Amino acid sequence: MFRIAVTWSLAGLILALSAGFVSAEGIGSRVFVVERASGTLAVYDYMERKLLPDRIGDLGNLRHATMVFSPDLRYGYLSSRQGKVSRIDLETLKNAGAIFTSENSIDNAISHDGRYIATAEYHPGGVSILDAASLKLVKRINAVVERDGNKFVSRVTGMVDAPGNRFVCVLIEGAEIWIIDSTDGKFTVEHRIPTSTDMPYDAMITPDGRYYVVGHMKSDHVTVLDLNHPEQGVKEISLRDPKKTYEEGVPVKLPHMASWAVSGKWIFVPLVGEERVAVLDRETWKFVQSIPVLGHPVYTVGSPNQQELWVSFSGEDVDRFVQVIDTETLKVKKTLEVGTRIYHMDFTPRGAHVLVSANGDNKLVLVNATTYEIEDEQTVNSPSGIFGVWRAFRIGL
Amino acid sequence: MFRIAVTWSLAGLILALSAGFVSAEGIGSRVFVVERASGTLAVYDYMERKLLPDRIGDLGNLRHATMVFSPDLRYGYLSSRQGKVSRIDLETLKNAGAIFTSENSIDNAISHDGRYIATAEYHPGGVSILDAASLKLVKRINAVVERDGNKFVSRVTGMVDAPGNRFVCVLIEGAEIWIIDSTDGKFTVEHRIPTSTDMPYDAMITPDGRYYVVGHMKSDHVTVLDLNHPEQGVKEISLRDPKKTYEEGVPVKLPHMASWAVSGKWIFVPLVGEERVAVLDRETWKFVQSIPVLGHPVYTVGSPNQQELWVSFSGEDVDRFVQVIDTETLKVKKTLEVGTRIYHMDFTPRGAHVLVSANGDNKLVLVNATTYEIEDEQTVNSPSGIFGVWRAFRIGL
Repeated sequence: MFRIAVTWSLAGLILALSAGFVSAEGIGSRVFVVERASGTLAVYDYMERKLLPDRIGDLGNLRHATMVFSPDLRYGYLSSRQGKVSRIDLETLKNAGAIFTSENSIDNAISHDGRYIATAEYHPGGVSILDAASLKLVKRINAVVERDGNKFVSRVTGMVDAPGNRFVCVLIEGAEIWIIDSTDGKFTVEHRIPTSTDMPYDAMITPDGRYYVVGHMKSDHVTVLDLNHPEQGVKEISLRDPKKTYEEGVPVKLPHMASWAVSGKWIFVPLVGEERVAVLDRETWKFVQSIPVLGHPVYTVGSPNQQELWVSFSGEDVDRFVQVIDTETLKVKKTLEVGTRIYHMDFTPRGAHVLVSANGDNKLVLVNATTYEIEDEQTVNSPSGIFGVWRAFRIGL
Repeated sequence: MFRIAVTWSLAGLILALSAGFVSAEGIGSRVFVVERASGTLAVYDYMERKLLPDRIGDLGNLRHATMVFSPDLRYGYLSSRQGKVSRIDLETLKNAGAIFTSENSIDNAISHDGRYIATAEYHPGGVSILDAASLKLVKRINAVVERDGNKFVSRVTGMVDAPGNRFVCVLIEGAEIWIIDSTDGKFTVEHRIPTSTDMPYDAMITPDGRYYVVGHMKSDHVTVLDLNHPEQGVKEISLRDPKKTYEEGVPVKLPHMASWAVSGKWIFVPLVGEERVAVLDRETWKFVQSIPVLGHPVYTVGSPNQQELWVSFSGEDVDRFVQVIDTETLKVKKTLEVGTRIYHMDFTPRGAHVLVSANGDNKLVLVNATTYEIEDEQTVNSPSGIFGVWRAFRIGL
């Protein structure tokens, strides 16, 4: 009798506490912020306006770290630069397993069915496919390329998820775009599409999952592949403004491809070596015009309603500003001062707020996107990338 | 000593069980399915491929029920036809409060900052604003209109969230679009924009939050308002195919506005009284062409990659089919047989699968959107609307 009573009350207590524990906060407004210097993740809840108490550590070198999320929002998967993939439980915010896939990696992606994680490896060059549930390696594809009779292994970058449960990536020395089918568990490289050989260094996919865009080292061209028609091969797009004269031999500075924005009928490209944002036509990929901005742009991000483009800058004089471009007039409509050395910006899912990491001030800033007022600031250690859990529901992030 | 030991082990047990409880399944793949006949919600996890064990009841009449989700994914808010708004805890799947806002309501929406729920009321006609956290009524706006010297109260419908933390709705007898500001807690009706007086009956907002589109009773015109420029007033758009001859006096059948799809550069309209889908140009709103389909279309839904449009049908002979239209060729590319009397379809967030409610067969069907194979079927009671939690992160749903 006593035992039964205890069991019942214990069960009741556990249920009550469990319910209280899980319902205290929702996980939909959680944002993971890379703290680059300490190699940790801070977790911010933008609805609660607070940092959650603990940092997540033991993650490796987090320069250019990327984080993807499972479709059921149970886990996040963070790739470090040292080939370590860490899994984070989104509810408890604890480490939930890790695996080394190589000695040096750069990007990861999760398949549309949520079953597989793909990582792009620098050394040894190739692609690793992990089972998202067991975190075990299920396939390793070496990026072996033959050119002029020589076989070599290439570094791989620009790993993204694509419609049809595909992964797409690009080989740096190999100068090939790979489309990998992850539907049947065989991970066949279905297509190997040559790009120009001037060193692809990064890539992105448009938010509709249709175009894969590759940047090249020391080139003012980018390569575009229509994933609906990979058999048609790539086309090359120039980012030069035909109205401008360019000095010969001046090195082209390279925009990080994740900094591009696709918004309405435009594609916006922050030209890191010039004081302008280039506007391309989304349908034809032709250069349309330049938008002059107050410094060298680093990062452009489009609002979910496609009405605004927020631009950050490099350089001590200007890196505390954000300029807001009206996508209808293609003119700067507002200049905000948010915090020094802005590294990353992201809109909340329906566009009410913008999250900004101000690396120079060690803070994360929440800006109201309607009033442009700063509504919250939190101290974080050398913040860089910002990863909201809602990325689980977007193509190519 | 004994007490301490018990407390510790109890704490450990609770922690362990709590962690187990919350991490067993993620909430990101949960889908609420309206069971119309029983007035209940079934909950399906499309990643786990299973119905969760309990139904959620005590919700009122669920004909045309709508459900919205808080940005932190803590709660869903379901509006019934009898003016009852029920709050559901997304983790425990239990009722978490309810309020009656009127005797007869139709639609609801959640503000972009997540603080307020707005409901559209038929009787008494007006708008109710609830505090999303306390579920208390914070403002009631009666839909009083004056015309030809007479004052009357109108029914309200078509409630949506819009950029700038606004709500937008339309007055049925009043023939006015209202834009309500929810930023300062005053809920001022900023704009009252007249539409044609032939009885607005429903409305939708484009996924970018820019255009508000109103359907009218017994009219082949729809009203379009550019929310970027409400001062410019509305324009009227015809859905008639200029190549077709129409009999005079034949009543126009009314598409439910939620059945429209905006995809790439097109807007697709299922014309419930004709065997075609109308294609409009997204930028000019001009009629482009008709796509012949196998019966009277009811519902069109665009894939997240904007490459396909899935169409359901009414009528005993055809209501078990879904036709898939290629948005590049604007032709039917596939006809699937999914289940009888299909009421609702929705893609999973990145487009890997489509959820289909087959009301005539009492089943919910999961279709693989790459292979077109049926991957799962679950028995549900007279299924109708399907609401995935990821709607929290979309404008206007």
